[in-house]
Parts: sequence; structure tokens; C-alpha cells
Amino acid sequence: MKIDESRIRIPAVRRGARTVRVVLAGCGTVGGELVRILHHAADEIRQRHGLHFELVRVLVAHGGRPRPGELDRALLTTDVDAFLAAAAGADVVVEAIGGIDPALRIATEALRGGKRLVTANKALVAAHGPELVALGRRHGGRLDFESAAAGGIPIVRALREPLSLTGITSVRGILNGTTNYVLSRLEDGWSFPDALADTQARGFAEADPSRDLSGEDAADKLRILVWLAFGVEPARLQVRRRGLGDDAERLARTARALDGAVRIVAEAVRTPEGVTASVEPVLVAAGGDLARTRDEANLVVVDSRWNGRIALGGPGAGGGPTASALLSDMVRAARRQRAVHPSSAVPPIPDRRPHAWAVGVERGRGAQEALGHTLARVGINNERMAWTGGTVAARTEPVPWARIGLAVRALESQGLTPAVLRVDADA
Amino acid sequence: MKIDESRIRIPAVRRGARTVRVVLAGCGTVGGELVRILHHAADEIRQRHGLHFELVRVLVAHGGRPRPGELDRALLTTDVDAFLAAAAGADVVVEAIGGIDPALRIATEALRGGKRLVTANKALVAAHGPELVALGRRHGGRLDFESAAAGGIPIVRALREPLSLTGITSVRGILNGTTNYVLSRLEDGWSFPDALADTQARGFAEADPSRDLSGEDAADKLRILVWLAFGVEPARLQVRRRGLGDDAERLARTARALDGAVRIVAEAVRTPEGVTASVEPVLVAAGGDLARTRDEANLVVVDSRWNGRIALGGPGAGGGPTASALLSDMVRAARRQRAVHPSSAVPPIPDRRPHAWAVGVERGRGAQEALGHTLARVGINNERMAWTGGTVAARTEPVPWARIGLAVRALESQGLTPAVLRVDADA
Repeated sequence: MKIDESRIRIPAVRRGARTVRVVLAGCGTVGGELVRILHHAADEIRQRHGLHFELVRVLVAHGGRPRPGELDRALLTTDVDAFLAAAAGADVVVEAIGGIDPALRIATEALRGGKRLVTANKALVAAHGPELVALGRRHGGRLDFESAAAGGIPIVRALREPLSLTGITSVRGILNGTTNYVLSRLEDGWSFPDALADTQARGFAEADPSRDLSGEDAADKLRILVWLAFGVEPARLQVRRRGLGDDAERLARTARALDGAVRIVAEAVRTPEGVTASVEPVLVAAGGDLARTRDEANLVVVDSRWNGRIALGGPGAGGGPTASALLSDMVRAARRQRAVHPSSAVPPIPDRRPHAWAVGVERGRGAQEALGHTLARVGINNERMAWTGGTVAARTEPVPWARIGLAVRALESQGLTPAVLRVDADA
Repeated sequence: MKIDESRIRIPAVRRGARTVRVVLAGCGTVGGELVRILHHAADEIRQRHGLHFELVRVLVAHGGRPRPGELDRALLTTDVDAFLAAAAGADVVVEAIGGIDPALRIATEALRGGKRLVTANKALVAAHGPELVALGRRHGGRLDFESAAAGGIPIVRALREPLSLTGITSVRGILNGTTNYVLSRLEDGWSFPDALADTQARGFAEADPSRDLSGEDAADKLRILVWLAFGVEPARLQVRRRGLGDDAERLARTARALDGAVRIVAEAVRTPEGVTASVEPVLVAAGGDLARTRDEANLVVVDSRWNGRIALGGPGAGGGPTASALLSDMVRAARRQRAVHPSSAVPPIPDRRPHAWAVGVERGRGAQEALGHTLARVGINNERMAWTGGTVAARTEPVPWARIGLAVRALESQGLTPAVLRVDADA
């Protein structure tokens, strides 16, 4: 191919930029990274979008903590009222403070004042998303939350628009980087306490990782995805939820005995009766997409009638990815487009579908016999029984969760502590 | 968790729907599927988006062909002028006819008339995208093309918005389902003619698959992605392009000799000097994400400064996925939002970076010696030499493409026909 170099034209950079006044609540891992990106990507933001974001106030909980060098410390305040007064004069309000209080107050006042609110706060959106959207609609404000469901993976925008009419049948995946990092370290032979400490040292887990370990964090994100995919109000969704708790090592041994791996899988499936949702330890096929999602990575898989299976993988959390997703929402908010929210709905229902289950108990004191007899007693057939190290594991025939619950309680009454994983369809 | 069933509220279905008049050019695999989806998803489109799409005219090249039962045949016309007259009274013009003629004429007249144009036509967008966008801007029209780059994978919207400010450093992936399907069959031991015939029988390949096999189809899609990611005018991008041609089986043997797999990888990388792009056979690691993308699937991987690595996989073509992507653009067009197009740019440059290469020749008549001596003569070190069946393959040290070109010409002058693959960084 011959190239005529004279035809390679570099489009001119747009010089003028519209100034957008921004207030930011929260300047920790995510907010701090947003400050850095706003500084270092200022030229690119001006060139690509014709915008200049000017930070006018930054709310922090603690005045004395270290902040990015790119931040003018004169903008800092610890006073929520002073922050809200500044927000009243801003074009875009960014909330990266997390939790419900004072985030809900900030969101409510911003939207009531007709502001464009951009948030990374999954707990807030999962609990109050629809009412905040409605509040914004009434007062001319708007809520965007691309960063709230899977950090840097652009799944919120994809579910709102390109995938919204594909006839979605299920949304599933790995939505919590902390538990996934812990599971990856357990696969490498680490102990649970060491794995958790390493996760915290690397900044993936909060100082209090209980919402990650319990599956609550993943359930919040799943509620948001289900809202977008199926129109189910997030706070109304029934999520069968089990996390890693203190039996992470037993779950890993049980999975290993059955030649698979453990992942905390968040899943919502549209059945003819409604949408059923779960966050729980799942036995996944070694070498499959879920098992190959390691460390702090996330994966979202969307199945649909017209579009087949779409998989989106990438960093589900972390300062840079979450902050760059916030920034994309800020650009969108500044462009004055209206956000799309689903208005139809499928009812949320409990999961009565049959699944295969992996049940592991520690060997010794007749554990193997107890496991076999107990499953037989509650009428659950055993498709396979296997051993690894000190663990004996059974893989059951497909039965609904309620019947496994019976077996679990019967085993516990015998002094055993069963590890229970759902078996993935591909495993 | 106790659930209060009375609180499970099913939001009321929005009754009224705004009618959007649509003309459709093309009613083959994609256009026909769009007709079916518009029919079967009409309730969902009304509920979720408050829209009713009314087909008012359908342009086809051949009046006598079978069409979907959902189509009112009275809407059919084979007359481009009659179609354009109907388009003048429509709200949205959908182009799924492919190729440049009459697609460019339809696009030009629609945009000049201030219409919203939605197209699945990668050749058209790659050749004329920026001028059509500019034409739309001048006349109040608009161009959307979510379905033109990777079918059902929502990468166009992702690059336009959520990923646009992540500091993208590279976009790469498998963008042509036909060649990927052929390569998957070769891995299963099929011959190239059988593999190609099977691809065509399954409807992935056109009757004339030459644009797929040559890499032109993938290069068009790459041009579109590079436009969105880096602001490079697509027609100006220099793409080093090699497809499967008639040496597919030799490429596969060469990869097997080196314990990897072949994929036709489209790649654009931002270097300090500019954007460099290629579509070529690449030796990828067995078991890696590229090798695991099999059959007609596509995969797009975006690396960025702030957001790490995002991977999007799914159906890159096919009637359902492409049509559902068209439909999402139709909804967007009907909502009257303005499309975002990049306005900054990085210059396109040829690829002078060093890569490792896999060079395979058929054994016999001193082929192994010829390969070794020839590489040595042009000053390229050999990191490994391996055999499988009748093929001897060398893996070279990293050198720029131009130097491998020297070796290829020297081997050809000795009567050998080398198969050349770039070696993926992970292989």
C-alpha cells in the first residue's frame, strides 16, 4: 500500500473550553485519584470534549490526612453544610464518599436543587437509586453512576443502552475484587488470614472488609445491574446471599476435591415467573472464564435472546478505574444529555430452580458416612464423592437451595460444619 | 431474610408510545432479523423506551427473494429513488445494505436532509465516517454505528463515552468471525477448503469471503475503533494488513510447531510518535484469551493508563447481534441525543516497533538449513526452531516488520513459501 504522507491530516485541537464547576465529596482512594486524573488529563478533556472541570470545593471527613499534591488544599472542608452551600453554585456534584450518611443527604439536596449528581456509591444507588432518579426528574437534576457497579468495566452504560433491547435473560459474574483476590491467594496455597492481610495491604479491601466478605458489596452491585437489566427496583430484589465468611479455606478444599475452583458469583436470571438473584460461593470449572478471572479482576457476563453471550472483564475497583468511570459520567453530565433509566419491570422472585451443589466436610469421626447418610436421608442423590487432604466432598444431583438447606442443618446438628458451593452449569 | 411480599411492586407499564417512522435499506441477514426483532420486541420497546417503531419502507436489491413472515411485503421497493422519497418523510433511516453503492448515496441524502441515520456498514463508516458526521452536523442530522465495528459487542458506545477519558494506549482483538471460524476448524484438523465451506454453510461468511480472508473487513472495523479511541481519521490510518490468504494451513502448522495458535489480530497501539495499526496472523499463547476466542466469536481488548485492561467478548456478527445493536442506535436516535465523536487526534504512523516473529517453511530439500541461514544472513537471531509434521518453524528475536520482509523475500527467492506470524507478547 502506498501512502501519500501529505494526506495525513491532524485535526486541529479545539481551543476554547467550557468551564464546568465541580464539587467533590470524598478524597480517599477514588476521590484522590479523580483529582489526579482531572489534573493530568486536563488537556485531553479539553481537546476531546471541549470542557474544563474546575474543582471548587472538596469535602473530606478528616482534615489532617495526606492528599494528592495536585489538590489545592484551600478547597478542603470537613463541614457538610459548607460543602452543600458550594454545591448549590456548582454545575456537577461528585460523590465518592461512600456509605449512606452523609451521602444520601448530599445526593438528596443536590438533586432537589436540580444538580447533576455523579456517584460511585453502590450502597447508596442499591438502596435509594430509583427515588433519587425520580427526585432528579422532578427538579431538573440527574443521577449517573457508571462507577458504582463494576468500577472500570463499562457495564452500566452498556445495560442502559446498547444491551437494553437484546432480550436479556441473565446477568452474572464476579463483582467483588476483595473476595476474588482472597480466593486467588487460597488457590496459591496461602492461609485465609494471610490472604486477607495481603488484600488489605494492597488496598483492595477496606479496613473493615466485612461487607466484601459477606457478599453485601456484590449484592449491592447486582441490585444495580438487575435494576438496569430488568427494571426491578434494587431495594426490592431478594438476593440469596452467602459470602466467604470464615469457611473460605473449607470452600477452597471442597472445590479442589471436585477438580474445580471457588468464585463468589453474583447472578440474576430471568425465569418465566420473574427475576431470581443470588450471591454465593460457586464451584466453577478450572480453566473456564470465571476461574480465569483472578486477583482483583471482575467479570460480567450478559446472556440475551438476540445478542447471545457478551462478557466484559477488567478492573472492578481501584482508584484509577473507578475515578475514570466517574470522569466519564462527569463528561456526560456536563453535556446535558438525559440519562436513560428502565421503566418496565419483571417481578423479583426467590430462586426455586434446581442446581447441583458441592458439599464438603472435614474427614474423621465418620464424616464421610455422615455426609452420605445425611444426603440420602433428605432424599438428595450423590453424583460423586471425592477426597482431598482432610476434606471429603459430595457433588449432588440438581435440587433447589431449600433442600440443601435441610441437609446443611442436619449435618450441623451432628457437629459437622459443611462448606456449600453451588456448582456452575459449566463445571 | 424475611420478605414482605406486599412491598414487591411491579411498576406500571407506560401505555402511550411515541411513533417513530423508520425506513430500512437492506433486508438480508441483518435487515431481516431487525424486522423480526421490531415485531417480537415491540412491547418491550414500548415499555422500556416509550417508543413505537413503524416501518414505512424497505429497500431491497432483489424483489423476489424470501423475506421474514413478519414483514408487510407492500413496504418493499427495489427503487432507490422511491426509497429516498420515503426516507424524506421518516424520522430514522436504517442502512443495513452494506458496501459503498448505493449506501453512500442513501447516507448522504439522509444526512443532508437532517435525518438520523443508523448504519451497520463498516466499509462505509471506515471510508466516509468523519465526512458523514460533519454533513449531519451541518444539516441537523446524525450518524450512529454501534453495529458497524464488532456486531453485538458494545465497543463503539464504550469507546465514545465510558472509556473515552481513560488514556487509551492500545485497542486490539479479533474482529472477523469468518477467519476465526476457519482457524478454529483448522485447529480441529479440518482442511482449509472444508473449513471455509462450513463457514459459508453456517452463514458467517459472505458468498464472496475475500474481504474477510484478506483482512480488509477487520481493517475497516479497526479503522472505526481507532477513530473513536484516538481521533485518527479512519481513511487515513495506515494498516499493515495480511489475512489468511491461501496459506492458512501453513500458518496453523507453524503455530503448532511453536506450541501456540494462530489468530488474525487487529491491533492499534499509541506510541509516543503516533498510532500504529496492523491486521495480521499472530501466534498467540495456547489457553490465552485470544486462543480461547473460538468459532465466530470476537474479542476486543482495550488497555489504558487509568483503567488498566478491559476485555469485551461476544458475537461479533450475525443477524441477531447486529440487528439488536442497530435497534439500540435507533432508540438513541429517537431520543434525540447528540452523538459524541472524538475531535482530538494522534497522528497515524507505520509500525517500526520490534516484534518476535514465527516463520514456518515446509520441510525437505534443505528447508531447515535455508531458513536458518537466511535469517542469519539478514542478521536476525533465532530464539527457537521447532518441527511439527512437515513444517519447520523458527521463532525470531524481536525485530521490526521491515527486517522480516527482507527474510521473506530471500526465502521466496530460494523457492520456499514462508508462513509468517507475529508472536503475541503473551506467547
